[in-house]
Amino acid sequence: MFCSDPGRVFTLRELSGQFGCAKSTLSEDIALLRATFSERGLGIVESINGAAGGVRFYPFYDDASDALFIEELCKTLSHSSRILPGNLLFTADVLYEPKLLNRLGAIIAKYFCELNPDILVTLEVSGAPIALMTAKALGKPLAIARRISRPAEGPTVTINLHKSDCPRQRQLSLPTRSLNKGQRVLIIDDCIETGEAAEALFALIGEFGAEVCGFGTILAISEPKVKAVKDYVHLITLNRSEAGIKLLPAEWLVDNLSQEGYA
Amino acid sequence: MFCSDPGRVFTLRELSGQFGCAKSTLSEDIALLRATFSERGLGIVESINGAAGGVRFYPFYDDASDALFIEELCKTLSHSSRILPGNLLFTADVLYEPKLLNRLGAIIAKYFCELNPDILVTLEVSGAPIALMTAKALGKPLAIARRISRPAEGPTVTINLHKSDCPRQRQLSLPTRSLNKGQRVLIIDDCIETGEAAEALFALIGEFGAEVCGFGTILAISEPKVKAVKDYVHLITLNRSEAGIKLLPAEWLVDNLSQEGYA
Repeated sequence: MFCSDPGRVFTLRELSGQFGCAKSTLSEDIALLRATFSERGLGIVESINGAAGGVRFYPFYDDASDALFIEELCKTLSHSSRILPGNLLFTADVLYEPKLLNRLGAIIAKYFCELNPDILVTLEVSGAPIALMTAKALGKPLAIARRISRPAEGPTVTINLHKSDCPRQRQLSLPTRSLNKGQRVLIIDDCIETGEAAEALFALIGEFGAEVCGFGTILAISEPKVKAVKDYVHLITLNRSEAGIKLLPAEWLVDNLSQEGYA
Repeated sequence: MFCSDPGRVFTLRELSGQFGCAKSTLSEDIALLRATFSERGLGIVESINGAAGGVRFYPFYDDASDALFIEELCKTLSHSSRILPGNLLFTADVLYEPKLLNRLGAIIAKYFCELNPDILVTLEVSGAPIALMTAKALGKPLAIARRISRPAEGPTVTINLHKSDCPRQRQLSLPTRSLNKGQRVLIIDDCIETGEAAEALFALIGEFGAEVCGFGTILAISEPKVKAVKDYVHLITLNRSEAGIKLLPAEWLVDNLSQEGYA
């Protein structure tokens, strides 16, 4: 069934063979499916015309329910029991919850879908779950950059990572086999604060002759305002002040809502 | 739609409200859905009787296609271009491929489904992708044990990890909030070799007063034969010898095949 294979184009010939029916009746079925999915917010059924044409599915919801979903998540994460000593926020339980990650991955995937990246790259450790779910929603492969490369990854390209808050030199590696020259890469991480790790990852991807076409995260910490990487898309802004922690949906999500006449 | 929410029980009342039809017609629709899914190997539609009853979906394939899928994967991974210096095997590209992970997660989930664990636990880094997909197929939450705990994880329970091939002392941590006393835990990792990391994780979970009900991995390295943890279920056995690397589907998968009369 094509719902379990997002982003893949199924030709009409393929579908008519699989379901044993004529192409002409298929078109009607597809139209019905598209209308039902759209009406119930279950995803997008896209028709592609021409010789390489067919149908593909993306598990995307409409903008309004995405914005409401993020608003609800902000409320859940803002609960006072989650504030840890040092004004830190406990997110590990929520942000490793498969169903929630699945939805967040679909929201990020929808944003970047038109860029049509060849591959997604993330940073170990905490970027891997959200990057995997985004890659799944787009039907694209994933590579994970590591701080310590493992023997079984084979030869790697490595870059030194300078973090202003940590005097120790650190490294980031990607297996030489993971990227090809000219590929368009979408970077996904769980959080951006200074952007220094992402900056190193941009440079590392550049070493392969590949091009970064986008960078998405779940959280963005509001301070420092000037980050090492300028172009990033986040879902939730985290403001940390003496008064505590405040979480807000990213502006572009709220703008989507008001454009649709919800606000 | 209940396909996107595996493991969750949908009551008939809920479904009849959602689709605006009588409970009696629903039963027929569910029976049709069950038959179609089963015939095409798309998953299992399970009816639960009684007051808390309803319908739930699991994305499980039949035993025969699971075994054939693993057999194919063994062939792909055995390709000579994947053998690295030191008789190591390059798996990072394949084992981070979302669609493939989704299927592997469903196979492991099917094996452990009847144990009905409360939560899944894995080890950073490389266990996270397969554990996330297994948790998704079961509709259960996930916790990730880390080698270096991050400030935002809050208080952690930490155990020292002794690895026979590494003189340096290492640690494993889980946030104190991640597990509760009495919970049944399913451990998922990408690979088992000596089993020493898993042994430490068993002990760490024991510190919470929680109980390990199962342990599943994708790969098991055949040597050493005696591992620190005895009970584990794996999908692929990796034999490393002077003649090279050989990958075989686990015996239980092959047994499933022959029982069904395929071999």
